[in-house]
Amino acid sequence: MVNEQQVLEALEQVLDPELRRSVVELGMIHDITIDENAVSLTLALTTMACPLRGSIMADVEQALFGLDGVDDVQVTLREMTAEEKRRSLGARPQQAESGAAAQLNRIGQVIAVMSGKGGVGKSSVAALLAVALQQRSMRVGVLDADITGPSIPKMFGLSGTPPAGPVGILPAETRSGIRVMSINLLLPSEDDAVIWRGPLIAGAIQQFWGDVLWGDLDVLVVDLPPGTSDASLTVMQSIPLNGIVLITSPQGLAGMVVRKAGQMARQMQVPLLGIVENMSYTICPRCGEQIEVFGQSKATDTARALGVPLLGRLPLDPELARRCDAGEIESYIPEHFGAIVEAILERIPAKATVPLFGR
Amino acid sequence: MVNEQQVLEALEQVLDPELRRSVVELGMIHDITIDENAVSLTLALTTMACPLRGSIMADVEQALFGLDGVDDVQVTLREMTAEEKRRSLGARPQQAESGAAAQLNRIGQVIAVMSGKGGVGKSSVAALLAVALQQRSMRVGVLDADITGPSIPKMFGLSGTPPAGPVGILPAETRSGIRVMSINLLLPSEDDAVIWRGPLIAGAIQQFWGDVLWGDLDVLVVDLPPGTSDASLTVMQSIPLNGIVLITSPQGLAGMVVRKAGQMARQMQVPLLGIVENMSYTICPRCGEQIEVFGQSKATDTARALGVPLLGRLPLDPELARRCDAGEIESYIPEHFGAIVEAILERIPAKATVPLFGR
Repeated sequence: MVNEQQVLEALEQVLDPELRRSVVELGMIHDITIDENAVSLTLALTTMACPLRGSIMADVEQALFGLDGVDDVQVTLREMTAEEKRRSLGARPQQAESGAAAQLNRIGQVIAVMSGKGGVGKSSVAALLAVALQQRSMRVGVLDADITGPSIPKMFGLSGTPPAGPVGILPAETRSGIRVMSINLLLPSEDDAVIWRGPLIAGAIQQFWGDVLWGDLDVLVVDLPPGTSDASLTVMQSIPLNGIVLITSPQGLAGMVVRKAGQMARQMQVPLLGIVENMSYTICPRCGEQIEVFGQSKATDTARALGVPLLGRLPLDPELARRCDAGEIESYIPEHFGAIVEAILERIPAKATVPLFGR
Repeated sequence: MVNEQQVLEALEQVLDPELRRSVVELGMIHDITIDENAVSLTLALTTMACPLRGSIMADVEQALFGLDGVDDVQVTLREMTAEEKRRSLGARPQQAESGAAAQLNRIGQVIAVMSGKGGVGKSSVAALLAVALQQRSMRVGVLDADITGPSIPKMFGLSGTPPAGPVGILPAETRSGIRVMSINLLLPSEDDAVIWRGPLIAGAIQQFWGDVLWGDLDVLVVDLPPGTSDASLTVMQSIPLNGIVLITSPQGLAGMVVRKAGQMARQMQVPLLGIVENMSYTICPRCGEQIEVFGQSKATDTARALGVPLLGRLPLDPELARRCDAGEIESYIPEHFGAIVEAILERIPAKATVPLFGR
């Protein structure tokens, strides 16, 4: 009969393919019980959405079956607690901190799209920006940093798990060739809730930057979630941003929350490229009346309060909602959007802001 | 000349008025330096928005001036790191865990308004629900759990810091007498960003529940932020909820994110009272056409997918945006809202869900 020491020694040989450290060292092995010639244990993953979980599990089983006197192996999967995750990430070697993939990627410029407030069309503007840049023959990626409310894959009609290799996860590709990474591509069902506290959210975003094989990109567009808490902080601290585009709506309330987002960017010393007012008005399909459904525009005031240019205003168009829901945002070209894209491109500083505090 | 030991002994006598423990024990005292008869130190607060910071500072200075040989005292304020905060809260005595105020409050029922997705009008529906209940002669409070994007005070035209006593913070009161607590009432300016990671967000929400003198309320409405991360988790784990009302918009994308929120409520075993579809359509002021600005309603499908009733649909009315921005939401009565309120009241279970994991 084997003992626990022998089990651990065998598992020392099993490496996490991404982190290239043993599953024992990473604190992934728990609850070892040995009953005659049967070994059972719990394997704690940094995320249940880990695309490599099957291969890690198979390696663990293979290592244990290799021991003399073992003929039954039971592996239970669970997700690490936030505390375990922190310890596990702390165990990562210094030089692999940004992930192996990050060292192979060549990303020209990184633009974050942020609003502070939800529902102002931040994700659709981020997606439209990516489409417009792609149409200008740039190589474009979209990093969906909204972990609890990811909407980028659905807009592009993407689903299914992207393939993962030993070096990193491959982004999904849209019809027109935009590379996309989002938590929703890694979930068993798009309706699944990601009920995570901050450290796990931050870990996922850092993986999307460091462990995804983006390859050569001219521009990476980062879609930020609402709020100025963990996700936004993590993006600003661990991804070198060239600038931020703020999205607002005509509501005064939205303006207030967007000013908070702008203030955060200032404090984190990331350049604000300007403001886009979305959902400014809608056109009555019967009589052509321009209706200001969210009240009169306050974008000029908001832009002035933040000391940044108003890059443009976009209408609320039911057709955009329809295309997004159908996964066909690439076939939608909004009026006046070209001028907004030009204004953004003109204002991107060549040099990215070095994160203030590191990871 | 005094020494550090004497300084610490003097400060042992200074109690945090809320936590009723010494500032030394709570780990609030740092960087003591003594130069001849001058003492300087840093006082770390759990939040810079602490309404009692002036009084704690005065107590610290008084204690130090009471020492022989001290005639100059310099106190610098800073905010605790997340780690310090956790340690400090860990130092709280068990029996005061829910705050002194919580023991004086008598709150009948707690209804959370949630959407998962931002910008679907969750806060305005939460506010309208509070107004409607108040008009039914109930005593009503609103706890704004959206710490990074708080919009409740502006809708009610509230500003200024609410008074705090030794037992707890008093909520602000609206024109019609609704009691309100929101981080925006505690910030120096409504535009100030709250750049906090999860543990501080959770701490603020727990204080709004445990350290606010709500008094006697028939219903407390909790306005949740977008997402299924720290804020929502903290509300579901530390506040006994009677039920959750989900808000969606006609977009398929919104429906997807709202289903994630519904799934979270299920997993946390909080009853879902039903769904309200907001921004269903707008009416053209010129020709009266009903325009589905966010596309065709999918609320029936979303309700069916979650197995909960559709409580009603609300139009997108520019007048509501105007009243919200003017702080006059109490003077706005939406059509058909009465039926929604009745449906919610009918479905509230008498017994609150006991939090799953405690604080």
